[in-house]
Amino acid sequence: MKENRISASVIKRLPRYYRFLGELKKQNITRISSGELADLMKVTASQIRQDLNCFGGFGQQGYGYNIDMLYDEIGNILGFNTITDAIMIGVGRLGLAVAENMNFKKLGFRLVGAFDNSPEVVGTAASNLTVLDIDRLEEFCKEHKPQVAILCVPTSAAKNLSEKLINLGIKGFWNFTHYDITLLHPDVSVENVHLNDTLARLSYKIKNHKY
Amino acid sequence: MKENRISASVIKRLPRYYRFLGELKKQNITRISSGELADLMKVTASQIRQDLNCFGGFGQQGYGYNIDMLYDEIGNILGFNTITDAIMIGVGRLGLAVAENMNFKKLGFRLVGAFDNSPEVVGTAASNLTVLDIDRLEEFCKEHKPQVAILCVPTSAAKNLSEKLINLGIKGFWNFTHYDITLLHPDVSVENVHLNDTLARLSYKIKNHKY
Repeated sequence: MKENRISASVIKRLPRYYRFLGELKKQNITRISSGELADLMKVTASQIRQDLNCFGGFGQQGYGYNIDMLYDEIGNILGFNTITDAIMIGVGRLGLAVAENMNFKKLGFRLVGAFDNSPEVVGTAASNLTVLDIDRLEEFCKEHKPQVAILCVPTSAAKNLSEKLINLGIKGFWNFTHYDITLLHPDVSVENVHLNDTLARLSYKIKNHKY
Repeated sequence: MKENRISASVIKRLPRYYRFLGELKKQNITRISSGELADLMKVTASQIRQDLNCFGGFGQQGYGYNIDMLYDEIGNILGFNTITDAIMIGVGRLGLAVAENMNFKKLGFRLVGAFDNSPEVVGTAASNLTVLDIDRLEEFCKEHKPQVAILCVPTSAAKNLSEKLINLGIKGFWNFTHYDITLLHPDVSVENVHLNDTLARLSYKIKNHKY
């Protein structure tokens, strides 16, 4: 498998490559040298060559990378070519913003259910779905077998909910809470969105005049 | 200055230390060894010692770190002890969720203004503010001199808006759009929130059974 040769740190950088390549595609640019891509992404050309050489065959000396091919290949490695069903737990302001604004399909997911425990939210629309009562979670998971849960609940609710979801077959979490799911479940795939951490870094930068 | 001795990569990790130390404080734990903290944070004890030794004096051999002192010191280095005024541009679902859910003050910011161009949004409440028409941005910035802008607008609007904001004295951006502000303004502090990137990483993990 080609993927096995790609290190975790390269994988972590791939979404950023994908984003920049997508912008170049939008501008109808078809080829770019490692040096030009490096300037754009503010990394070194040697880092780019090292990262993208894992893929093999897309860069030719003196000719540059074929943007369309590299974009598609990175998308395939990130799994965007297969669709995984996801459910959203918690459709408050943040959950609704995420449900409505994200292009899930482009990133290999399909939002198939949305759940909340508030009577004011249950029955409302989220993206193309109707929010269901959290009491129907078990029945829904047994029938539809979603693999991923998007946790947009208060952090205090995250421990119990993640336990329940894992028991119902959830294998991965997009976690907007500050609860550390992997602490008790090291075998579950988790990506945490820690908005606090990025704001904290901005605090440091702005107060120390760092860019 | 102590800060000058701290590398960019350590600074990048500090918010995560701050978060874990905050959780320990909540549990009324006052001391922790580098080994215990390493287990909790899933890094090596030597990484922790290396990172936190920059601060000097908080860890004593065989005695562990003083959690309260380390927490406060990291908070000070991240600049949480001085307050910077911030304005929000774009109060759609995402902007409203961010305005209402974030504890700005704890992270060294104060939200002093919120702006939108939609007649349906102008005049509504966001956190403790009333959303102003974007036409009043210039007048507001001249009077209140905010230093930071939180960009929650569509990516297509980000280029023009960031130009305008920089001309009005904005020095830093918490950027929820996919527009790369630093491309034209390398001297501005920017933290990007790329939700797509974290969802892309989850796609890779879940489809390759990586944790």
